[in-house]
Amino acid sequence: MFDNKEHTSIEELGEFGLISHLAKSIVLTQDATIMGVGDDAAVVKPPKGRLVMTTDMLIENVHFDLIYTPLKHLGYKAVVVNLSDIAAMNARPTHILVSISISSKFTLEAVEELYSGILMACEKFKVDLVGGDTSSSPKGLVISITAIGNADKNDLVYRTGASPNDLLCVTGDLGGAYMGLQLLEREKSVYIANPQMQPDLEGFDYIIQRQLRPEPRFDVLDILKELNIKPTAMIDISDGLSSEVMHLCKQSGVGADLYEEKLPIDTVTSNLAIEFNIDPTVAALHGGEDYELLFALAPKEYEKIKNNMDITVVGHCTEYGNGIKLISRSGVSFDLKAQGWKSF
Amino acid sequence: MFDNKEHTSIEELGEFGLISHLAKSIVLTQDATIMGVGDDAAVVKPPKGRLVMTTDMLIENVHFDLIYTPLKHLGYKAVVVNLSDIAAMNARPTHILVSISISSKFTLEAVEELYSGILMACEKFKVDLVGGDTSSSPKGLVISITAIGNADKNDLVYRTGASPNDLLCVTGDLGGAYMGLQLLEREKSVYIANPQMQPDLEGFDYIIQRQLRPEPRFDVLDILKELNIKPTAMIDISDGLSSEVMHLCKQSGVGADLYEEKLPIDTVTSNLAIEFNIDPTVAALHGGEDYELLFALAPKEYEKIKNNMDITVVGHCTEYGNGIKLISRSGVSFDLKAQGWKSF
Repeated sequence: MFDNKEHTSIEELGEFGLISHLAKSIVLTQDATIMGVGDDAAVVKPPKGRLVMTTDMLIENVHFDLIYTPLKHLGYKAVVVNLSDIAAMNARPTHILVSISISSKFTLEAVEELYSGILMACEKFKVDLVGGDTSSSPKGLVISITAIGNADKNDLVYRTGASPNDLLCVTGDLGGAYMGLQLLEREKSVYIANPQMQPDLEGFDYIIQRQLRPEPRFDVLDILKELNIKPTAMIDISDGLSSEVMHLCKQSGVGADLYEEKLPIDTVTSNLAIEFNIDPTVAALHGGEDYELLFALAPKEYEKIKNNMDITVVGHCTEYGNGIKLISRSGVSFDLKAQGWKSF
Repeated sequence: MFDNKEHTSIEELGEFGLISHLAKSIVLTQDATIMGVGDDAAVVKPPKGRLVMTTDMLIENVHFDLIYTPLKHLGYKAVVVNLSDIAAMNARPTHILVSISISSKFTLEAVEELYSGILMACEKFKVDLVGGDTSSSPKGLVISITAIGNADKNDLVYRTGASPNDLLCVTGDLGGAYMGLQLLEREKSVYIANPQMQPDLEGFDYIIQRQLRPEPRFDVLDILKELNIKPTAMIDISDGLSSEVMHLCKQSGVGADLYEEKLPIDTVTSNLAIEFNIDPTVAALHGGEDYELLFALAPKEYEKIKNNMDITVVGHCTEYGNGIKLISRSGVSFDLKAQGWKSF
């Protein structure tokens, strides 16, 4: 090898060696944690209120491509996709369990990079990594994370509570993660065609970050709490707004009108979409991986949030029989179809 | 196809279709469960006492071979390996989260088989399946399960509490799962050499079951509770007795003397080991996957357990400096080396 990085094989270390090596970097900060990694199971004091728990598995070449995904970012994102589900219940995360399986192409240093991203997310969101599993895989990398959190039972928000006339709001902006992915895929093709070419990502930091390093929106939950607002229903936007609106409406037994002109789309996202011959509205509706929140609010809350930069009202709930409509800029109403990201 | 089984492709159904199809079979029995599958996260009332949580990932062709592993058994076993970790804390399981990733070779009917085994274990051990994730995989099957349980804080048993002179006990018998695997691997080779040959497994039901359908030993925990016995340290025997004795002793700061003649080995295991030119002691010490429990007991408890058929005293703890020894049938003392199953 021509680089001077160290390469330590996992095989040399063995499973127990790897676990004890990685465990050294773990810092526990939750008072509730009694036993983390190091026994048959983790032991934790139960919270007051309600426990919430969720799990997500990321598979190489289905959910991520290591050609343009730094392992540290991947580790961070693998935690975030789980924390975003906790956020969507209006709960706060406390603990995670992390299982990885790795093929022989991964060195110890690569696994350390991955864990440094996982632990960075743990530190930022004050979550303790208390357990997990590591094993070899015949091919590629698999990361499976379970996140545990809690909420006061009166604070919990389900997908089921929206009523007709409730406002439909989204946090942040949409379509950026999708356009970031398109850009990375284009640069990958260029690189494959000519490995001497350097990727041209200048000016696109924002959407690259949206794809590679999403953030769960606990900041917006804090704002809502300060404003004494509790959404009537909430879901995180992982598969694209259209798909999530459908879940929320179906589970709440309501319809919805969404307004194309209201969809929050960043200028970088929008410009790049046009360059790629993608309608920015399509990117925002069907793109996925934004990890923003979609929530319904009683109309009376409008005054409290109307000037908030992080929250955009994109439409409102209607009677169930209305179906789910997108009202275009020209005022034409379309049936919305879910075309969210599908892993099958 | 010449068989009349139905084959429905997962692709037709999509991820959400698959999840809602599978969710229909789930029966919730825990009073604590408020929301299972169907929202961003499961919601559960926290238990009294302490929460315990553990996770394990099973990878095709690393942890199992579908040539001789029925999917239903695999689903059952994937739950059991997690519940066994909960048992090793002297805790009881209440909830699981299940993530699977499947390649396109799996039909809906195959996934249903896998879930029927998972749900059979849920029913038997009164555990609610409350969440999970399904996605495609470029190759093979991955099952990642997280189990949550609880125990009174005074009932919890860690790996750390054993003292010199404590008795070392194991439940059930050892080496059976390993010899079951050897037999299945032999029949696989025979089958590959000549697909007309039928597998010859007659008389080996017991060890086949030990490999394909292990059971967590909650029954023994119940017995210990009835006898008012609390182990000083405990671990489940997943990687082989030698490896687990080393973990328990290292974490308790003790040494151990194990007696070869005391190792509980079933006759079928022992006879087959001899036929395979494997020393039955080696199968029992290093075989792995038995999912029995190894625990340490204060010497005063001996009278209470000495006639119990499910518990065998295999040795005792010594001072740390003694190291970990196996005393052979002829009275010679050997340093025990861990040669447990390694996934790397």
